[in-house]
Amino acid sequence: MIAMERARNVAVLVYEKVDTLDVAGPYHVFGLAGRGGRGFRVYSVGESRQPLNTVTGITLVPKFDFDDCPVPDIVIVPGGPGVHTAINNEKLMTWISSKADSAELVISVCTGAFLLAKAELLEGVKVTTNRRALDQLLELIPASSQLVRNVRYVDNGKIVMSAGVTAGFDAALHVVARLHGRECALEAASILEYEWREEPEAANGQ
Amino acid sequence: MIAMERARNVAVLVYEKVDTLDVAGPYHVFGLAGRGGRGFRVYSVGESRQPLNTVTGITLVPKFDFDDCPVPDIVIVPGGPGVHTAINNEKLMTWISSKADSAELVISVCTGAFLLAKAELLEGVKVTTNRRALDQLLELIPASSQLVRNVRYVDNGKIVMSAGVTAGFDAALHVVARLHGRECALEAASILEYEWREEPEAANGQ
Repeated sequence: MIAMERARNVAVLVYEKVDTLDVAGPYHVFGLAGRGGRGFRVYSVGESRQPLNTVTGITLVPKFDFDDCPVPDIVIVPGGPGVHTAINNEKLMTWISSKADSAELVISVCTGAFLLAKAELLEGVKVTTNRRALDQLLELIPASSQLVRNVRYVDNGKIVMSAGVTAGFDAALHVVARLHGRECALEAASILEYEWREEPEAANGQ
Repeated sequence: MIAMERARNVAVLVYEKVDTLDVAGPYHVFGLAGRGGRGFRVYSVGESRQPLNTVTGITLVPKFDFDDCPVPDIVIVPGGPGVHTAINNEKLMTWISSKADSAELVISVCTGAFLLAKAELLEGVKVTTNRRALDQLLELIPASSQLVRNVRYVDNGKIVMSAGVTAGFDAALHVVARLHGRECALEAASILEYEWREEPEAANGQ
């Protein structure tokens, strides 16, 4: 556990056709765990502050753009059908690479894993993604990384990756537990009336 | 099961400080179940189309306002801290009452239950809400209605009510199963990698 005086900045990346729950799930978990400013300050960040359409049709307005976004301690990279366009967006990929470089933690949700692969963040780590996208991810990862099936999330210390959509809740709860203790995660899960699906095999950080 | 030629309109009510997941969960479930236009057409509706802040800080833009919103077959009433202001918003309460009147189904999520109580929709039905708000709801419901604890949702035919936040996923999946069959609900849950928590006791519609 790393002691920090200030709340950690948690940036949730958003882009056109991002999965709504990939964004909203971890956003809500970190928001609840950070109530009272004690732990986390969560915000969304997009290429611009223009409203964008998530996959469900819910329209979001990013809180910050790439230029005015506070430096994140934790970067959350969600997936969704829009990932196939996002992966070719140079400005977005540059943002991920540079923020991942200075961040304490990078968390992918669902097919957000593809963006971590493209950003070359997966050397020598355990990786996972949406179960329907595992084989596709296999083609994008380096030989040194190990694809893990049938888990809710994997924890490599700096790089944490979740399986599909609601598995992002579990990965976020895991990171909350790792940084602020299990009670804090259980309290957030209780408020959401969510049954945390823990992975006993996940390493407890670095 | 009621046969319908066209897709059902599913209106998700949004208001300032609504719970983000109360909105996004059922929205996503019905959206997935309605892919290809076969079952559901989901949209958000607010008092105006101005962006509004959900409880997490995620900013949403309602798709429709109360004046231009298509007539809903299914009305979803989410909760959140904003419910205490919404309950005194005459225009919003009038919208709920009038749309509930003509709708096939009304689904409350979490403390959205309070709005159904205020709209006098709970006469003679089983009711539930967020487990932290059950006692508060008890003060608002008529003597003829029965508070149910420790369930994910209750189904009274027209009125379906869920417990807190993520229980809205389960209630939405239940309604999808009731209207379009269990396979359709299981497919949506599978895409979300969500373990549907079914209530075997819930009535199977009217």
